[in-house]
Amino acid sequence: MSVELTLAEVARLTGGEVVGDARLTVDGLAGLEHARAGQLSFVTGPRHAEAALRSLASAFLVPAGVDLPGRALVRVAQPTLAMATVLAVFHPDTPAPVGVHPTAQVDPTATVAPDATVMAFAVVGAGSVVEAGAVLHPHVYVGPGCRVGAASVLHAHVVLQRDVELGRRVVIHAGTVLGADGFGYAFDGARHRKIPQVGRVVIRDDVEIGANTAVDRATLGETVIEAGTKIDNLVQIGHNTAVGAHAVIVAQAGIAGSCRLGSHVVLAGQAGIADHVTLGDGVQVGAQAGVAYDIERGAQVLGSPAVPVGQARRLFAAQARLPELLRTVRQLEKRVAELERRLGAGAPPA
Amino acid sequence: MSVELTLAEVARLTGGEVVGDARLTVDGLAGLEHARAGQLSFVTGPRHAEAALRSLASAFLVPAGVDLPGRALVRVAQPTLAMATVLAVFHPDTPAPVGVHPTAQVDPTATVAPDATVMAFAVVGAGSVVEAGAVLHPHVYVGPGCRVGAASVLHAHVVLQRDVELGRRVVIHAGTVLGADGFGYAFDGARHRKIPQVGRVVIRDDVEIGANTAVDRATLGETVIEAGTKIDNLVQIGHNTAVGAHAVIVAQAGIAGSCRLGSHVVLAGQAGIADHVTLGDGVQVGAQAGVAYDIERGAQVLGSPAVPVGQARRLFAAQARLPELLRTVRQLEKRVAELERRLGAGAPPA
Amino acid sequence: MSVELTLAEVARLTGGEVVGDARLTVDGLAGLEHARAGQLSFVTGPRHAEAALRSLASAFLVPAGVDLPGRALVRVAQPTLAMATVLAVFHPDTPAPVGVHPTAQVDPTATVAPDATVMAFAVVGAGSVVEAGAVLHPHVYVGPGCRVGAASVLHAHVVLQRDVELGRRVVIHAGTVLGADGFGYAFDGARHRKIPQVGRVVIRDDVEIGANTAVDRATLGETVIEAGTKIDNLVQIGHNTAVGAHAVIVAQAGIAGSCRLGSHVVLAGQAGIADHVTLGDGVQVGAQAGVAYDIERGAQVLGSPAVPVGQARRLFAAQARLPELLRTVRQLEKRVAELERRLGAGAPPA
Repeated sequence: MSVELTLAEVARLTGGEVVGDARLTVDGLAGLEHARAGQLSFVTGPRHAEAALRSLASAFLVPAGVDLPGRALVRVAQPTLAMATVLAVFHPDTPAPVGVHPTAQVDPTATVAPDATVMAFAVVGAGSVVEAGAVLHPHVYVGPGCRVGAASVLHAHVVLQRDVELGRRVVIHAGTVLGADGFGYAFDGARHRKIPQVGRVVIRDDVEIGANTAVDRATLGETVIEAGTKIDNLVQIGHNTAVGAHAVIVAQAGIAGSCRLGSHVVLAGQAGIADHVTLGDGVQVGAQAGVAYDIERGAQVLGSPAVPVGQARRLFAAQARLPELLRTVRQLEKRVAELERRLGAGAPPA
Repeated sequence: MSVELTLAEVARLTGGEVVGDARLTVDGLAGLEHARAGQLSFVTGPRHAEAALRSLASAFLVPAGVDLPGRALVRVAQPTLAMATVLAVFHPDTPAPVGVHPTAQVDPTATVAPDATVMAFAVVGAGSVVEAGAVLHPHVYVGPGCRVGAASVLHAHVVLQRDVELGRRVVIHAGTVLGADGFGYAFDGARHRKIPQVGRVVIRDDVEIGANTAVDRATLGETVIEAGTKIDNLVQIGHNTAVGAHAVIVAQAGIAGSCRLGSHVVLAGQAGIADHVTLGDGVQVGAQAGVAYDIERGAQVLGSPAVPVGQARRLFAAQARLPELLRTVRQLEKRVAELERRLGAGAPPA
Repeated sequence: MSVELTLAEVARLTGGEVVGDARLTVDGLAGLEHARAGQLSFVTGPRHAEAALRSLASAFLVPAGVDLPGRALVRVAQPTLAMATVLAVFHPDTPAPVGVHPTAQVDPTATVAPDATVMAFAVVGAGSVVEAGAVLHPHVYVGPGCRVGAASVLHAHVVLQRDVELGRRVVIHAGTVLGADGFGYAFDGARHRKIPQVGRVVIRDDVEIGANTAVDRATLGETVIEAGTKIDNLVQIGHNTAVGAHAVIVAQAGIAGSCRLGSHVVLAGQAGIADHVTLGDGVQVGAQAGVAYDIERGAQVLGSPAVPVGQARRLFAAQARLPELLRTVRQLEKRVAELERRLGAGAPPA
């Protein structure tokens, strides 16, 4: 399967403008260094222009302000966005074979849409619903009472524990577990007694979740991921937490229980949010930051404990000078003592 | 399935005392904001009293010292404990269908108790034993030489690699791997040569382990989790480590190899413990803390590197003032130099 | 199955030299405290000599410079290496039953070598190749277009998403996902649009990867792990990253996208590497360290943000004295003000 596009077609797909021969064809997209003749490549900014001039690619997606003399261009508003569009055309998804594989176990009370796909060794539990065009890859486990929305994809080994609701076009990568019990115990003086976790998990439309991540069911009520949010691999999301729409949560970040994250929040890798914390819309939390208090909308924080990013950078710079500061202060103490001695002055009371 | 309880029954179950009409019935439990008429709710302390007065719930579990004028109450010693008890009554576990699913693969040399449950696509290896009332959910893999104690539950996709021993009433959530090889190599000058990991994993009674966690087999001997300990999602426990009884290990915490944790230890989220570290009974390690040295029983530590929690809080407070301190010291240097100039004094020798 | 070795045989296997009776036999290896009579134990350095003298073991692997008067010894260059060799003899791998289990699903266009093993419920996708002696444990999912090199082992529940290439003698532990989509989106002003991840994952010979780890496929091109590298549990490796040969990446470490790690790099537990970072050969990154900038070959770094290890240790020591420093500086300010008052001097301009 090989797709060829003229630059005119690339421009039409990406809302761009051809600079050069619009009839030139490209049959793939690759990075500047790896592209071969006949392929399209892309430049995200002026600092890559030199590498582009050395590239073997036959044409380039470029933003305003980048010129590559003598090379064919498609000028676009946002090259990464254009690249996403063109890549999807060069690499169309292989349509999954519709229907239920003979080895799959679908409970008689479950409903699987006729054009959905349930692959080998998948299990669909009692009362669950798999909507039109959804794809369950091999070894997926959908427990009782779940809903897999239209056109959603569960990759191999995904687990929906029970009463998990997925919207439309949700993608869950391999090994991720949605709806395991939240981590809730009450200590009775001798041992930790389990608080039954009887709530559920709700994932809205267009959410994508990476591999080996865990989103726990609520104690009561719901753990919710709002529409369009993207979650990476090995992320932990605790019970009763609500993550707003179009958030981005990078690998190995962790959100404890009962948090409220606004829309467009960004958590960088390995960041941690303590329980019952609220992050306003658009909050950005730096890598490895630790947030134990509410953060107002739009703020950017860094560090563990997290502080506003400007303060964190001043702190990191100051820390680098801390050993030198200790020496300076020791020296100052001596100099002040000498001055006091010469003036016959005692130290003032503390 | 709907359960109704009178407040008299609630009081009997929880060891509490009814304030109001003991014949009033409730048919569910919910949080203050989500409860509807006919449901029970709960108040953990005086600061939630106002929200309780606005709640639609018909009755409330309350601790001593909380009064809700005009509302029906069940006064209990510890509302979260009472809530755990009542929730379990409102939401009884659905009994698993006893027996071995026709698709499951049980080795002829394995023993499965007649009233145990082995669900679809589960595998039970050679010589393994599944005791009375144990439940293996779909896709569980129990390797050779394992024991799953009575009434234990392995959720979907759990892996017991081999020679893993689980006590009674152990619960392991989906995707967790017990008994993978510990991370042990000897560098021979050119490459890392594997040290065979021939030990095993032992999990005692009433332990619960979250989703996508890993507990490695010992090199020699045993990696052990003692009775009643609760471990969250995405936790790493290295080879030869021993975790004491009734510990609490929160999500994404990691314990390296050959550690010794006492009983009732608490590790908050994303905390890390270096190899060969001993933590005494009752030690509490804060979120994202990093512990590289032994900690005495009862101590609370925070920070990376971890220090006693009081010291850490003073350090965090002092850090916030560090940029200001740098300015103050620069200013002091100038003032001292000026004083020295006026006194005709040179700086003393360093 | 019981293996007996004379000390002469132990010496031959390990390139060591017997001190004592070379005909003495041992039938197992255990740590100093757990060994019983008839077993071999090992001493890694002089500080364990006393424990060795109390041990019940009948003989000991010891390095140069360790003497245990009256005990049988095999003196070796590196006791852990010798231990690795001897353990492998005492605990030979059980050979996997060759062939494809009747429940396994192998695509008709896939190729499985006649002496490979494909266990229960494993799936091998279209066009994939499983080479000689490779072992796929139960529930392994090998997607389309993959290659599993000769003598490689995929433990239970491993997922190779698609187009994943494994070299020879690669070992992947349970629950690990290779080849899930990289985390790449372009924000179009309203929502995150997915950048198709059409690259692949390449794992070279003799790599070992722990449990529940994730290595993402490249956007374009390859995510690569070079030969001999060892990766622990719950590690994240982002798209387009290349990890050099013979590296060691400890549990819960995370490497973002487009990084370049040299050979023999070591990342300790929970360390994090930001995207597009290059680490030179032999770089060592401490536990919980956070690296956002390139590090030159051979450097050792620690802290978040990471700095050279000597500087980090000075910083940690200085931090411990920070609250005291604040008090000292406050005191100095008073003393200088007093001196200025006595000299009739105003503070100099800031």
